[in-house]
Amino acid sequence: MDIEDLMESRREMYLEQLFTVLRQKSISAQNVGIREMAAMLKDLMMDIGIATRLIETNGHPVVYGEILSKPDAFPLLIYGHYDVQPAELEDGWDSPPFEPTVRDGRIYCRGAGDNKGQLMAQLMAVKTYLDVCGELPLNLKFMFEGEEESGSPHLAEFVEAHRDLLACDLVYTSDGPLHETGLPMVVLGVRGMLYVELTCQTAKWDNHSGNKGNIAPNPAMQLVQLIASMKDGEDGRVLIDGFYDNVNEPTAVELEHLKRLPYDPAQAARQAGLEVLGMDAQTYYRRLCYEPTLNICGFTSGYGGAGSKTIIPSKAVAKIDMRLVAGQDPDDIYEKFCRHVKAQAPWVEIQHLGDMKPSRTSADNPLIQQVITAVESAYRNSPVVAPALGGSLPDYVWTQVLGVPSALVPYANSDEANHSPNENIGIENFISGIRCLCHVMERLGR
Amino acid sequence: MDIEDLMESRREMYLEQLFTVLRQKSISAQNVGIREMAAMLKDLMMDIGIATRLIETNGHPVVYGEILSKPDAFPLLIYGHYDVQPAELEDGWDSPPFEPTVRDGRIYCRGAGDNKGQLMAQLMAVKTYLDVCGELPLNLKFMFEGEEESGSPHLAEFVEAHRDLLACDLVYTSDGPLHETGLPMVVLGVRGMLYVELTCQTAKWDNHSGNKGNIAPNPAMQLVQLIASMKDGEDGRVLIDGFYDNVNEPTAVELEHLKRLPYDPAQAARQAGLEVLGMDAQTYYRRLCYEPTLNICGFTSGYGGAGSKTIIPSKAVAKIDMRLVAGQDPDDIYEKFCRHVKAQAPWVEIQHLGDMKPSRTSADNPLIQQVITAVESAYRNSPVVAPALGGSLPDYVWTQVLGVPSALVPYANSDEANHSPNENIGIENFISGIRCLCHVMERLGR
Repeated sequence: MDIEDLMESRREMYLEQLFTVLRQKSISAQNVGIREMAAMLKDLMMDIGIATRLIETNGHPVVYGEILSKPDAFPLLIYGHYDVQPAELEDGWDSPPFEPTVRDGRIYCRGAGDNKGQLMAQLMAVKTYLDVCGELPLNLKFMFEGEEESGSPHLAEFVEAHRDLLACDLVYTSDGPLHETGLPMVVLGVRGMLYVELTCQTAKWDNHSGNKGNIAPNPAMQLVQLIASMKDGEDGRVLIDGFYDNVNEPTAVELEHLKRLPYDPAQAARQAGLEVLGMDAQTYYRRLCYEPTLNICGFTSGYGGAGSKTIIPSKAVAKIDMRLVAGQDPDDIYEKFCRHVKAQAPWVEIQHLGDMKPSRTSADNPLIQQVITAVESAYRNSPVVAPALGGSLPDYVWTQVLGVPSALVPYANSDEANHSPNENIGIENFISGIRCLCHVMERLGR
Repeated sequence: MDIEDLMESRREMYLEQLFTVLRQKSISAQNVGIREMAAMLKDLMMDIGIATRLIETNGHPVVYGEILSKPDAFPLLIYGHYDVQPAELEDGWDSPPFEPTVRDGRIYCRGAGDNKGQLMAQLMAVKTYLDVCGELPLNLKFMFEGEEESGSPHLAEFVEAHRDLLACDLVYTSDGPLHETGLPMVVLGVRGMLYVELTCQTAKWDNHSGNKGNIAPNPAMQLVQLIASMKDGEDGRVLIDGFYDNVNEPTAVELEHLKRLPYDPAQAARQAGLEVLGMDAQTYYRRLCYEPTLNICGFTSGYGGAGSKTIIPSKAVAKIDMRLVAGQDPDDIYEKFCRHVKAQAPWVEIQHLGDMKPSRTSADNPLIQQVITAVESAYRNSPVVAPALGGSLPDYVWTQVLGVPSALVPYANSDEANHSPNENIGIENFISGIRCLCHVMERLGR
């Protein structure tokens, strides 16, 4: 019996195993059912033949498993998470959030898409492969964390502390949705982030704009001038000295991938709540994947109610996030940002509210080409190869801390509603995920 | 008996008359006691010998009175207001707000300083002068309005409609406080104002700053760039084309007065809640009296709470007021402002929230020199001659609608707490006010 036939014959059984895992609550933010979930997962993995143990962290435990076939076999690390977002029926669920319910070919349940359905597809792939072939063509490691939905606060230190254990040639993550066209995706990185708050306080209290106008300085005007000095009004280029110094330019192969990325400007505009989006595909994806941002998340000063109030505000606060691309380092950018502020308006206070390193795995990497080929053969369709997501995830722990390439190959449907009521995964998406990892193992194990 | 002796002998009687007026509530904003106050005032003025009548407006009535002595006598118009701000004991009053209470030589009551104490000083001056001399040396007109504390919404149209009735050579107003040094003041104008609101809406909803960063435009950044383009970051000069076109420069006499204005930079800083105020007297008063402002009263966009929220706001709103100086016209400035916005960011919406014309009476005017001399002889001290207040009042109805010079000669103590709990006027301030108008009438009537 081959892999396809076995998968088909075990459809009900695999779904039943997924349902059991879905029924077990594991809400990291509320510390509900976490240890029960980790224990259940360990038993399940041991049953499959994966040597599994729980490793404590300063937060929730990591479920670590491995099947080491041969010393010289290809070492692959699969990352996933077993914790989920909170969910209450009253939030707008059509069925109880922790009771998997099938409607129209989809499984509705908290965690169905994010991330239990995808995590279970990995495990069922291993089970299938083992039962058909007797052994895996590679050395496989699993690292499932229980804190992803709480911002992975211990992930970096865990990876740092377990370099040897986690040693591998590639990290493979299945989380998030397929491309909205329904095509499979291979995502090769994320933008990093630096979040700062600027505070300008010029007086102890708001002043009368007549009695003190031209006398008391205006903190909003000072922040306006400062922020304006950071960005070109015409082309939007960030003017902070050295901001672009280390930005990695796309390679020829990456530019080729960029050209092939599906793009519907009307749809993209709709998704952003815009009337129109005046840019072509190339511009769109370059801006999103290869260009950093400097963005005002909030600007608050003085009177914001209806009508007029004639004051010189005493204080102005601006929140700014910068999405950083591969090559940029948040610490370096923070230093440059501070230098700019000190030069322009040294009295403005800077608060560092958070950062995350960007990550990037080159599409030119031969391992990535293998993954792309495997995904293509599994889905019988060329995957969309995205150089980076616009947003930020702690992907740098693989590329920078562990120092290996990382491929994100999501399995869920694009309308999985993760973090929302009625989260779901299509049954076929789950099955395709099983198939996908079988192809990836097969290809990398050659 | 001369004026000083009569004033002294009638001290108790004049205070009793003031107390009667203070006890009568007249809160224009709440329409409480307004007509009763107007009627009481009319009776009181008739008793003094002033031909008085109530003239209806589209709001509260004007109390108009006149004593026309001789056809060729100097015609002076005295403006004041009989309405007061609201007041409740719970606001923090130490005695009932509508029961005049004397403590430490001051009368505490709503309206004591603003404006009943000063208005009554004018009437008691006329009574004193008449009783000593039998007739006035000039033709006197009184126009007391009942809507000043509600923004004088019908003042301009009233003046427009009653030009002949109000015809005079000078308007004399006593409102507000003496200089904080205790010196008398002659104020010769106010800054005008233009208040606008800018709204920039770029998307239907806030976007994720990662997923849409560099794709969805940032409205806060657009307003920042727009407002930055309106003002030089270095010298604070307004960069709107033609903004300074019609600004009246100070005359030589005015510059002389400016030099003599009392100035304590430490005190001025303290009053504005600033650590230091790095400017000399000349700069301070030029900026306040002769230079217009462009000031951000409020800037609101995106997230203003604690910590970080990673969004591209969908909307940004800025409230801007411009204090205008003599020569500038709000309509003209509004047109120039709109032209600037249209050229820089035509998608930004402009809302006109209000305006007021500036006003200025030249210190070179011989009549003003007479007033200054009279005030000096009344107070036995040179008055502070201020070319303009930093704030805005509808003084232009005299200088521009009626077309005559206007002198503001305040009588109240500098800590009168007008618009606040425990509003008060010093008894000596009230008495000095009576003396002051006697000197002014005497001097102008020659």
